[in-house]
Amino acid sequence: MSTNHPIKISDTPAPPYYAVIFTSLRTDGDNGYAETAQRMEELAMQHAGFLGIESARNELGITICYWSSLEAIQNWKQNTEHLAAQQKGKEQWYANYRIRICKVEREYGMK
Amino acid sequence: MSTNHPIKISDTPAPPYYAVIFTSLRTDGDNGYAETAQRMEELAMQHAGFLGIESARNELGITICYWSSLEAIQNWKQNTEHLAAQQKGKEQWYANYRIRICKVEREYGMK
Repeated sequence: MSTNHPIKISDTPAPPYYAVIFTSLRTDGDNGYAETAQRMEELAMQHAGFLGIESARNELGITICYWSSLEAIQNWKQNTEHLAAQQKGKEQWYANYRIRICKVEREYGMK
Repeated sequence: MSTNHPIKISDTPAPPYYAVIFTSLRTDGDNGYAETAQRMEELAMQHAGFLGIESARNELGITICYWSSLEAIQNWKQNTEHLAAQQKGKEQWYANYRIRICKVEREYGMK
């Protein structure tokens, strides 16, 4: 699953912008999860205001999506295919999850 | 390395609070990284204002630390042992990293 994720650190613009932190624990078995997760990443990337995605999973999974505005986050949340995936996630894929909407105020790094 | 991380979703309080997103790509070899990473987690947990930590690594590593205030983040950043670890990180452990300081504005989840 995680092998499908982009392995680069997102090249986000100067703050402020927004981050959606999605932390999750999976149920057992794939049940169509990997394919949908890959599709959701591709779909998110095409949405207005998308700035980047970073993802990793061991026992705990963390996916962070970066967006230009709260409006962009809201639009992506309401995407029809994404709504169906959210429903499957609640019913089947996740034992538990937490979503945090954050404003990125400061950013720095090695390069 | 990631087997040492807590595998639970952080039980953070009602927003607003702060998140420090640390995204990294490692260099080859351990070079004392695992031991220090474990120590830094234990040390962070003892600091005033610490609210939780979530971590996962595949090719990309993501660690998110939750804090009650920007002051708490600044205090942790200036911890002597942590400063030494930051230096080793820059010199030896990380091929690249990015740190994002965020204000968590909204939070929801399954439970």
